[in-house]
Amino acid sequence: MTRWPDRRILDLFGIELPILQAPMAGASTPEMAIAVGKAGGLAALAAAMLTPQQMAEAIKKIRAASPAPLNVNFFCHTPPADDPQRLASWQARLAPYYAELGLDPAASAPTGGRAPFDDAYCREVERLKPEVVSFHFGLPEQALLERVRATGARIIASATTVAEARFLASHGCDAIIAMGVEAGGHRGNFLTHDMASQIGTFALVPQIADAVSVPVIAAGGISDGRGVAAAFVLGASAVQVGTAYLFSPEATVKPWHREALETAEADATSLTNLFTGRPARGIANRLMREVGPLSPDAPAFPLAGGALAPIRAKTEAAGSGEFSNMWSGQAARLAPRLPAGDLTRKLAGDALERLAKVGG
Amino acid sequence: MTRWPDRRILDLFGIELPILQAPMAGASTPEMAIAVGKAGGLAALAAAMLTPQQMAEAIKKIRAASPAPLNVNFFCHTPPADDPQRLASWQARLAPYYAELGLDPAASAPTGGRAPFDDAYCREVERLKPEVVSFHFGLPEQALLERVRATGARIIASATTVAEARFLASHGCDAIIAMGVEAGGHRGNFLTHDMASQIGTFALVPQIADAVSVPVIAAGGISDGRGVAAAFVLGASAVQVGTAYLFSPEATVKPWHREALETAEADATSLTNLFTGRPARGIANRLMREVGPLSPDAPAFPLAGGALAPIRAKTEAAGSGEFSNMWSGQAARLAPRLPAGDLTRKLAGDALERLAKVGG
Repeated sequence: MTRWPDRRILDLFGIELPILQAPMAGASTPEMAIAVGKAGGLAALAAAMLTPQQMAEAIKKIRAASPAPLNVNFFCHTPPADDPQRLASWQARLAPYYAELGLDPAASAPTGGRAPFDDAYCREVERLKPEVVSFHFGLPEQALLERVRATGARIIASATTVAEARFLASHGCDAIIAMGVEAGGHRGNFLTHDMASQIGTFALVPQIADAVSVPVIAAGGISDGRGVAAAFVLGASAVQVGTAYLFSPEATVKPWHREALETAEADATSLTNLFTGRPARGIANRLMREVGPLSPDAPAFPLAGGALAPIRAKTEAAGSGEFSNMWSGQAARLAPRLPAGDLTRKLAGDALERLAKVGG
Repeated sequence: MTRWPDRRILDLFGIELPILQAPMAGASTPEMAIAVGKAGGLAALAAAMLTPQQMAEAIKKIRAASPAPLNVNFFCHTPPADDPQRLASWQARLAPYYAELGLDPAASAPTGGRAPFDDAYCREVERLKPEVVSFHFGLPEQALLERVRATGARIIASATTVAEARFLASHGCDAIIAMGVEAGGHRGNFLTHDMASQIGTFALVPQIADAVSVPVIAAGGISDGRGVAAAFVLGASAVQVGTAYLFSPEATVKPWHREALETAEADATSLTNLFTGRPARGIANRLMREVGPLSPDAPAFPLAGGALAPIRAKTEAAGSGEFSNMWSGQAARLAPRLPAGDLTRKLAGDALERLAKVGG
């Protein structure tokens, strides 16, 4: 049987298969992490939409079911200052929808609900010691990062450019997630905010692999064994897969989102900042088409969602995702529709088969 | 020695190496085509900026030097109707540059200079019988396409979405170029004009390979042997490479363009419609930064270049590319800087070595 051409990530994390389940705030679950860990991939828990206490409970639940290494993921954005003018522009932009849906424009709009890594989260990390800690939107402040490192955790983070990869490597990351523009959900960009220059996985992975000495984890557009195999050929030592896990029964995906995923062609998605204030890839819907997927009026992350909340509540109650984020990468169609554990094993098995075939 | 895992394109075109030199109007030359053909790749001539007579002379020059198969490439856009209002908006947008450079806004602006495939070109194709005819921006009208087919030429064309690939296959194309968003120069899109949903090579190649029965040629972000090998792993039967050939001495690349290419990081480029009216990937410069790379004011292809011509003439004379198109894909940095023939052989040789290594 063919062996993995690069074992650096397998050895770094102590896992059997070089498949990282993407932490997907709101969609991945402890059940998904348990299944992936049991299958030999790297299990992940997304903390951004959990309180520190909820996160601790989820970690305990996963630990109780599986001894496999666990990756706990945090956002590390800087909470934005109030910007009443931008909020007013945003509310004005959304006013026609409030009118159409019979909503009160003065209704209080709860905000974001995505918290950055801080002392409270860090104390739980110190207590519960996940084997891997991953960061999105850059890295936390140095003192927090040192505390994480002192727990013995392997630290990884996402880069969308070569400059971001060099930054992460020079700040001590043990591996870099090279996040190509195909990827679903929030872009991990932190040194650049120019969406027009974001880079495809095919071009990004080898350029990051050439630029840093730590191993590279490819992400973006990888939903089948061909993609896993191709990532290794380009210089990656593992892959991170998100969208394909959304089809698993372990995912918490709303019905309209699941339906959109089921039929999503490769060009069904765009990068949009409308739902949270930061660009993320999702399936295009009415809001994205009418407002334009990237709007300068959307308040800074994570505030944009506040004024959308009443619109979402009303339309979602009617079974519609036309005003809701439906994150997806560009390769939903390639995904085997399987439970999370079976998917993990199939991605790895098919990749080894593909590598053996092309190398023959 | 490892063999190519898929020989369909090699057999279809009668070539030794599955490397197609991208036809690059204005940058590729008969000398480049001769070198690529002699090395065993598929030589290409870009006709869009040549008159039918100039094209015929270039074909004869290539034929005299090499018996290798030749791909002659045509644009097949519909020449746009006059749109005085959009032209006025465009001239107004550019007026500050005219003022800054001391140019007369009333100076006559010659237009585009990129002609679509028509009867005159077709007669030369019938007379000179290139082995491969390729189209960009869709296909020509049915009668012209039938005439090309009757010459015995293999017909290929670019797709940027799965729907475009299906269209091309159903209209009788012998192979499909899957053009990922990383690719430099003009996007080949023709059924969609939404740049926000364009797809990365990594996601596009396998989805097109799954959707059509004809072989797929991967394009976009491929500048080294890893990329060639990875394209095969994703399901391609060959690759088309453009940017890497711009470094060869056979390319006609202006000094400022070459200098920008030499140092271009992966995120140096954006899709822009400013230079011709159709979106194309080029290295960002002052015009793209100040106007924004995609402007609704730019007149339809190929007219946008007209009002820019006086600005370009003056700034280029001063050695600047800040107002000129500098086409490049996202993987310039990966390119071995070699003559066209050596590059062709190295891409193929390195790819086979990479396939053998990962398959071991």
